[in-house]
Amino acid sequence: MQNVKVIIWGLGAMGSGMAKMLLNKKGVDIVGAVGRGAKLGKSMYEIIGVERGDRPEVLIGTPEDVIKEKSADVVLCCTDSYTKVAFDRLKFCLERKINVISSAEEMAYPQAQSPEHAKQLDEIAKANGVSILGTGINPGLIMDLLVVVMTGCCESVDHIVSRRVNSLSPFGPTVMHEQGIGITVDEFKKGVETGTLAGHVGFEESIHMIADAIGWNVEKVTTSMDPIVTDVDRKSPYGFAAAGNVAGVAMKGFGYIDGELKIEMDHPQQIEPEQVGVQTGDYVIIKGTPNVNMVNSPEVPGGIGTIAMCVNMIPQIINARPGLQTMISLPVPRAIMGDMRELIEPECKIVK
Amino acid sequence: MQNVKVIIWGLGAMGSGMAKMLLNKKGVDIVGAVGRGAKLGKSMYEIIGVERGDRPEVLIGTPEDVIKEKSADVVLCCTDSYTKVAFDRLKFCLERKINVISSAEEMAYPQAQSPEHAKQLDEIAKANGVSILGTGINPGLIMDLLVVVMTGCCESVDHIVSRRVNSLSPFGPTVMHEQGIGITVDEFKKGVETGTLAGHVGFEESIHMIADAIGWNVEKVTTSMDPIVTDVDRKSPYGFAAAGNVAGVAMKGFGYIDGELKIEMDHPQQIEPEQVGVQTGDYVIIKGTPNVNMVNSPEVPGGIGTIAMCVNMIPQIINARPGLQTMISLPVPRAIMGDMRELIEPECKIVK
Ligand SMILES: NC(=O)c1ccc[n+]([C@@H]2O[C@H](COP(=O)([O-])OP(=O)(O)OC[C@H]3O[C@@H](n4cnc5c(N)ncnc54)[C@H](OP(=O)(O)O)[C@@H]3O)[C@@H](O)[C@H]2O)c1
Ligand SMILES: NC(=O)c1ccc[n+]([C@@H]2O[C@H](COP(=O)([O-])OP(=O)(O)OC[C@H]3O[C@@H](n4cnc5c(N)ncnc54)[C@H](OP(=O)(O)O)[C@@H]3O)[C@@H](O)[C@H]2O)c1
Repeated sequence: MQNVKVIIWGLGAMGSGMAKMLLNKKGVDIVGAVGRGAKLGKSMYEIIGVERGDRPEVLIGTPEDVIKEKSADVVLCCTDSYTKVAFDRLKFCLERKINVISSAEEMAYPQAQSPEHAKQLDEIAKANGVSILGTGINPGLIMDLLVVVMTGCCESVDHIVSRRVNSLSPFGPTVMHEQGIGITVDEFKKGVETGTLAGHVGFEESIHMIADAIGWNVEKVTTSMDPIVTDVDRKSPYGFAAAGNVAGVAMKGFGYIDGELKIEMDHPQQIEPEQVGVQTGDYVIIKGTPNVNMVNSPEVPGGIGTIAMCVNMIPQIINARPGLQTMISLPVPRAIMGDMRELIEPECKIVK
Repeated sequence: MQNVKVIIWGLGAMGSGMAKMLLNKKGVDIVGAVGRGAKLGKSMYEIIGVERGDRPEVLIGTPEDVIKEKSADVVLCCTDSYTKVAFDRLKFCLERKINVISSAEEMAYPQAQSPEHAKQLDEIAKANGVSILGTGINPGLIMDLLVVVMTGCCESVDHIVSRRVNSLSPFGPTVMHEQGIGITVDEFKKGVETGTLAGHVGFEESIHMIADAIGWNVEKVTTSMDPIVTDVDRKSPYGFAAAGNVAGVAMKGFGYIDGELKIEMDHPQQIEPEQVGVQTGDYVIIKGTPNVNMVNSPEVPGGIGTIAMCVNMIPQIINARPGLQTMISLPVPRAIMGDMRELIEPECKIVK
């Protein structure tokens, strides 16, 4: 069997990380990279900062240059957060009869907020005999799939708390800016009002994924977003928050089922949580028969986790039945320590 | 769509628990129960201690009486621990063109110790257009599938510790006897030598499942079994261990990959662990990129957990492609809080 052939669309933090991870794996080749602006025409190896060695060159091109019909087994599309923004790019790949994995948060469960787009993607994928999945660390695993898995040992479930207490310290300037690190409380409030501070994207997706998985009908989802105001100066490699200013964002999501609050998402993110005695971690707390009281501490880092989830799901999306897939419709994610080809069903391989 | 139709073979602790759980679920009926000896001819409701109400009677019968071709969508077979002992029963069901879920520990990954039986079951299932799965809490979820899921967020994995520290106090006389609760250390040693003390069954299965999932080749598996000697008297509802005697069993399993110990299973089980300050829990400890350090405490109880896993996987095994399936080849387990029929693909339903 030929190596698994991968194209990466978007060489930002995630796409570059996936490229580096793939270069360390057996049985898989990166055969194309799509970028824009100043990156066009450059070597992918230059952009991701890895020696090319004797590997064939990969020049960054436009989608039309790079993504030809059946020219790869999968495109990793790492350009967007929102389904409607990603839609045309995803469609472009599917119509060229290539499977797709998207890191867009909303694509982890597009049924939640873009049912019409979800339906179209399903139809386009089926019409072209390929499949598409959105995944990542959160949404994708920690605050949703892991909860679903743990309900698997429950005879019944009454209430779910999914909590992710994470540190933003490892992230760069973009994230510092997006999350409002260092700004004043007034600026934060204005940012929320004007929509310039997005905070975490994914509660709608995680809540709908959990509810659909276990057979609860979501009546409504509400969310809230509050500043985490620090009472001491906090400094991370790319961020600084003076005492009295914003060191992070406390995001909450609430899923109502039959008039009752049954799914609570609690996601405070901040720089230097250790400095104020906050222990980071991922929590799954299920009230049911039996109760589940799980914690992974410290939290799975968001960057590495997303890179790994997208790459590790490649065999599953290649092997999947055509159409829109989700993390609850496919076999579980897993690390790939062997040759990726051994995980591929021959009749599902696109580049034979 | 007709309700999902289930037959239960073996109304012991697990089978009875599954029957009770199913009676509380929507869109599913128990249409048959297989037993032996004094149970034959009795009402299932009498044996499981539930009022029949206006439900149709279910009389316990022989396999030949109860399991007719396509008379149900799935048989839950809860009679055995070992693949070779269960084999003829599983074959019997598959040949009657009904899907099977087995609670036998070895059936959680029969490829590990009975590859020939696994191959035959796969062939028989395929020949009859149905599928078969072994599952339970452990093996089935805690010490294996949960580990696999968490490797999903890893770029690479170096070493795995899977630990389950559980209490035997909720269990009855059979388990007390099987695990040697209350006997002397000499009696324990003799029991291990003569094979009358089995301890936990499943390390081979869990280790092979994890290794196959992530692409490691298992070179060898070793196990050890030591008495947990108590220095105080311990008393549980069905067990008693005087100071100096055996209050539990410390089981360990070691999986070697390319000459290195890479998978460690650590499973101490005892009565009244709290009495001596032992905190029970389920642990997943992965050294890799990133590290994972997860604990669920207290542990998921083995009885409820196994009952729930077997019942909750019913939709997955009905929907599966024909053949032998495992927890790593199917979509993730999940609680079923809605109508079970909504989870079944119409073309996969056996009793239309
Ligand atoms: N589900 C999860 O858990 C999860 C986790 C992490 C990230 N994500 C999401 O995944 C996406 C990628 O994350 P990131 O950290 O890699 O973001 P990033 O560093 O901003 O990278 C995005 C990349 O996409 C490129 N791009 C955008 N539009 C493009 C277009 N039309 N053509 C070609 N390239 C285009 C950008 O190119 P330029 O550099 O030229 O602008 C940039 O290189 C984000 O939306 C993020 O929110 C999800
Ligand atoms: N994977 C896991 O995590 C997990 C967890 C729990 C249990 N298990 C395994 O699942 C199996 C069932 O557990 P359990 O606690 O329910 O055991 P149990 O209480 O001993 O029940 C076994 C039942 O099977 C019946 N049976 C055995 N052979 C039969 C036959 N040929 N025909 C009809 N009925 C037969 C027995 O009938 P009689 O009463 O007439 O003897 C008994 O009712 C055990 O082997 C156990 O080790 C696995």
